[in-house]
Amino acid sequence: MARSPVLTVRCIAIAFFVLQIAFSPMMVMASDADPEQDFCVADLASGTVVNGLVCKSPAAVTANDFVFHGLANPGNTKNAAGSSVTPAFAAQFPGLNTLGISMARLDFAQGGLVPPHTHPRATEILFVVEGSLLVGFVSTNNQLFATTVNKGDVFVFPRGLLHFELNVGKGQATAIAALNSQNPGVQAQAAALFGSGISDVVLEKAFGLSEKAVEHIKAKFAA
Amino acid sequence: MARSPVLTVRCIAIAFFVLQIAFSPMMVMASDADPEQDFCVADLASGTVVNGLVCKSPAAVTANDFVFHGLANPGNTKNAAGSSVTPAFAAQFPGLNTLGISMARLDFAQGGLVPPHTHPRATEILFVVEGSLLVGFVSTNNQLFATTVNKGDVFVFPRGLLHFELNVGKGQATAIAALNSQNPGVQAQAAALFGSGISDVVLEKAFGLSEKAVEHIKAKFAA
Amino acid sequence: MARSPVLTVRCIAIAFFVLQIAFSPMMVMASDADPEQDFCVADLASGTVVNGLVCKSPAAVTANDFVFHGLANPGNTKNAAGSSVTPAFAAQFPGLNTLGISMARLDFAQGGLVPPHTHPRATEILFVVEGSLLVGFVSTNNQLFATTVNKGDVFVFPRGLLHFELNVGKGQATAIAALNSQNPGVQAQAAALFGSGISDVVLEKAFGLSEKAVEHIKAKFAA
Amino acid sequence: MARSPVLTVRCIAIAFFVLQIAFSPMMVMASDADPEQDFCVADLASGTVVNGLVCKSPAAVTANDFVFHGLANPGNTKNAAGSSVTPAFAAQFPGLNTLGISMARLDFAQGGLVPPHTHPRATEILFVVEGSLLVGFVSTNNQLFATTVNKGDVFVFPRGLLHFELNVGKGQATAIAALNSQNPGVQAQAAALFGSGISDVVLEKAFGLSEKAVEHIKAKFAA
Amino acid sequence: MARSPVLTVRCIAIAFFVLQIAFSPMMVMASDADPEQDFCVADLASGTVVNGLVCKSPAAVTANDFVFHGLANPGNTKNAAGSSVTPAFAAQFPGLNTLGISMARLDFAQGGLVPPHTHPRATEILFVVEGSLLVGFVSTNNQLFATTVNKGDVFVFPRGLLHFELNVGKGQATAIAALNSQNPGVQAQAAALFGSGISDVVLEKAFGLSEKAVEHIKAKFAA
Amino acid sequence: MARSPVLTVRCIAIAFFVLQIAFSPMMVMASDADPEQDFCVADLASGTVVNGLVCKSPAAVTANDFVFHGLANPGNTKNAAGSSVTPAFAAQFPGLNTLGISMARLDFAQGGLVPPHTHPRATEILFVVEGSLLVGFVSTNNQLFATTVNKGDVFVFPRGLLHFELNVGKGQATAIAALNSQNPGVQAQAAALFGSGISDVVLEKAFGLSEKAVEHIKAKFAA
Repeated sequence: MARSPVLTVRCIAIAFFVLQIAFSPMMVMASDADPEQDFCVADLASGTVVNGLVCKSPAAVTANDFVFHGLANPGNTKNAAGSSVTPAFAAQFPGLNTLGISMARLDFAQGGLVPPHTHPRATEILFVVEGSLLVGFVSTNNQLFATTVNKGDVFVFPRGLLHFELNVGKGQATAIAALNSQNPGVQAQAAALFGSGISDVVLEKAFGLSEKAVEHIKAKFAA
Repeated sequence: MARSPVLTVRCIAIAFFVLQIAFSPMMVMASDADPEQDFCVADLASGTVVNGLVCKSPAAVTANDFVFHGLANPGNTKNAAGSSVTPAFAAQFPGLNTLGISMARLDFAQGGLVPPHTHPRATEILFVVEGSLLVGFVSTNNQLFATTVNKGDVFVFPRGLLHFELNVGKGQATAIAALNSQNPGVQAQAAALFGSGISDVVLEKAFGLSEKAVEHIKAKFAA
Repeated sequence: MARSPVLTVRCIAIAFFVLQIAFSPMMVMASDADPEQDFCVADLASGTVVNGLVCKSPAAVTANDFVFHGLANPGNTKNAAGSSVTPAFAAQFPGLNTLGISMARLDFAQGGLVPPHTHPRATEILFVVEGSLLVGFVSTNNQLFATTVNKGDVFVFPRGLLHFELNVGKGQATAIAALNSQNPGVQAQAAALFGSGISDVVLEKAFGLSEKAVEHIKAKFAA
Repeated sequence: MARSPVLTVRCIAIAFFVLQIAFSPMMVMASDADPEQDFCVADLASGTVVNGLVCKSPAAVTANDFVFHGLANPGNTKNAAGSSVTPAFAAQFPGLNTLGISMARLDFAQGGLVPPHTHPRATEILFVVEGSLLVGFVSTNNQLFATTVNKGDVFVFPRGLLHFELNVGKGQATAIAALNSQNPGVQAQAAALFGSGISDVVLEKAFGLSEKAVEHIKAKFAA
Repeated sequence: MARSPVLTVRCIAIAFFVLQIAFSPMMVMASDADPEQDFCVADLASGTVVNGLVCKSPAAVTANDFVFHGLANPGNTKNAAGSSVTPAFAAQFPGLNTLGISMARLDFAQGGLVPPHTHPRATEILFVVEGSLLVGFVSTNNQLFATTVNKGDVFVFPRGLLHFELNVGKGQATAIAALNSQNPGVQAQAAALFGSGISDVVLEKAFGLSEKAVEHIKAKFAA
Repeated sequence: MARSPVLTVRCIAIAFFVLQIAFSPMMVMASDADPEQDFCVADLASGTVVNGLVCKSPAAVTANDFVFHGLANPGNTKNAAGSSVTPAFAAQFPGLNTLGISMARLDFAQGGLVPPHTHPRATEILFVVEGSLLVGFVSTNNQLFATTVNKGDVFVFPRGLLHFELNVGKGQATAIAALNSQNPGVQAQAAALFGSGISDVVLEKAFGLSEKAVEHIKAKFAA
């Protein structure tokens, strides 16, 4: 790519932040009590902040509440990351409320990357619809488990561990991911480290970088 | 189809039984303790019957343990049901052990059906890869929530409720399902009712059928 | 019985539907968060639809909130099923809210049947107070585990699996069931299949029946 | 009673200790992983000490594994407590393994008492089969919720709280209790305080008693 | 001590009741749904009684919501128990809401005692900051597991079991306890038995005491 | 410090890796089934790899199994990080097996840092024993919640989110942390990103760095 690296990382950051917001706008209002009723379709218009999503009146629930169309089309991968992640979490798909599962669609331009991230509250399983991806996770023993997966392959990322997906095929790639939480959370670690405001001294010591180097990387994540 | 209805239902039953066995061969050896370690890849060759799958030595675990190739190809839909369900549960995909999630691939010939069934231990979420499906579930208030979903659509079937999928498009259909359990279980209700050996009198009373009518339907499920 | 089979099954269906409604009227308002307080007696009069039952003010809670009298008398078994199921779930017994358990009373006229059904969210354990019952469940391998139980016997039906109870003794029978959920849900499979509106084509293929035969059975469940 | 109070309490203690042992002999071998298979009938003859009960080979499981006859007859209430508690926990009823529920039968002679106790790991729900009982529990605010329940009544004791049952009717009484754990545990608090070997000084301070008074009560629990 | 034993135990009781109230004032409003969002800081000023603590608007949450200063200073041990327990549960520390953990600070005067008690809903782990404590718990087999722990030692009390802590060193002692629930509950068994209003006859039978002796002990807990 | 930055980060990495290994050596053998028995003390000498830690014979369990001495002394902070983290997880403290909680001791030299890390499976609560720490976590909305805490303060880090602790006081600092899992896992994100073997291209894109810069940072983590 001919874009400047500063713009590149900034765009990646913006793209991912947008995705994070798309993933979890009502983070603090979404909670998963045990499913003790058939369903409890969320009423996203409610202003009440309780531990969970306020539900629609049962009388207002139809089959349509259990359908989500948002994963039908590829996301826009014309960004620095060369990737797009479209969530189908409870915040986007209210019918998922209390049901303990969610989905997302991953689209990759050639060479596109979903940068290393964690899901604080879920395991993720991924099915490759098209293309070839280098996927991997890191264990708490800091061992990397990475491999290439192709169309039709399934890969599983254990709960809470750092992982990533990179398009290593020719052309585009698409995958469908499922997670065992209605609101698994997504934390892109590069952005969390360098774009959240953690003090320089912490990052200098953690990475063995000079303050200048830390600031240089931080600049890439400044929104 | 020109097949006799007896053969047809018998074949559907056999097909589904095979699928059930494929789904849950080691049912009693599979159990989901809370994920308290990064992973615990099952050792399916072990003869020990404990509450859970015995795990491989960590030293023997590689990235390949977290990949599953079994959903890459369409299943054989040349059967009475006109459908094929290929599981990626812990019994097929040992890397899923303790991770709380699984997948399956549904393929449909034209007019094919995955007959009404329940998952005793999981919610299911489904993504339509190709085609058009009539999908629905029945609530415990006996209300049917059914609709047609097309390529790219997502539908969710709440935990434990009766549901089905029928190909209503032209040509074939394919879907990928995820379930929030490593071993969700599958119970096809028609087969459970008429093919497990439940006494005639129970079925006569439950369905308002004569003994002759019950035997007639039972014959279709006789393996 | 001299009743017409149509009326019979319709009555069984109505009886069971009534029971289902009795079981789960406030389905969407009942939910089981982890018990993190001593108790949280439900306020069933509240109009708020949240994920769970709104609770009474603690100041208004008395010992009486933890007593339920509704299982004291036999239910009316003068119906087609020859059975009556009286629930003590959170919707009937608000003191159960958050406590993770519920009960029901099963009464049987001679030959009475609680038709094959599932509990989407609970295991059931049953104690025979009087009489003899044929009880059984079907596993996900489609194996039937059925036996006769007599006064004083206990039988357990694993979570989510199809099961039934039939009075095979002389005279009446009574049993007390407990379930490990405040709102386990009840789904009578015959009614869910033929009485919820699932399209004929699905049932024809699932049972190997003609459209006419399907309509014939459906007619029995038309309310 | 004409028995000496020392013998009396000692007998009550012995009776209850026997019951405790009956309740939890294989305490450390019983554990409840999430039910991720249909069932996992315990093999109580196994010498392996794992976190859970080792299971029978599925091929050896029959309907009989899900039946328990042990609650069919009244227990022997000719003891100091005037009560008998017969457990149907996983240790007695191996089919309960992993199923998250258990039962017990309570029998009372006239004036009989199941002394104040806790279940560390379960809520209890009780159905009065015969007689009248004074039942109650104490909240963590030290508020007593007690009332008389009669034949057919149901009472619920929230998880982990101190509770008791006393026969206040004429003649005998019988109740069936269910608990939402396969091995709820039972801790009789009087015996735990004065019969386990807790040092005198702790009890003197806790109860405001002299050493002599503490020893006097301890003597009643000495086995 | 020169205080009368009646005043002594009454003071111990009052002290502990105060501590209990401090522990669980909003018992019925606190509940732990699964953590499905990052956090849900409680709004303790809300008058709504739901199954859980109503949460602050996310916009109002700051780092300060995750800090608690209340364990910084020793509690007042100039009371009969010679101990002070300062809770950091959700009711005191709203940021803990939904996070599944809490803390408490235990301070002991010389010879001070935290009397035998249970936590209905949590395991407790304790770290000795200063001094020497005799700590122990009683199993459901009525076996006492007690030992002396010194500065820097850790001891764990399994979920729901009776336990106590006694200062056996010279001078004061301090410990920090953590519990795996935001609202574990505390039930002092002596007070629950003799100070909640349980009828004399129950206590007479349970302890083998005369009515006079029971009343004598009860008087110590009369508030 | 006069040490070369390469050595520094390498040492930090080594130190943290050692800590990780100390934290989770038997990661794959440790699992948390629901506590359905009083306790199940792990037998760490067992060679059996099951989903959970094999338990000691109950007959061999003593009070000593519930004591852990390993947090009694400060760890060695004479390393690049200037910190030491001493775990009391199930792998070190077998008595914790199945009990759902663990502890750790954090020691800081002046300016010492526990680098940014996540716990995949637990919430953490921390008590400052001595000194002043800058602590903080990052939400999934990439918002930093950081503040200074002093002796006696408590801070809570929600489950799975990135967090860190830095000694900002004069002199040393010590804290005790508790986590609501017997084996929470620890993943230091800098090391996971740059020290596990993730390909350069992934890191270049994720951080907006040149290959040279990535290799430069990787060199710091090369063990």
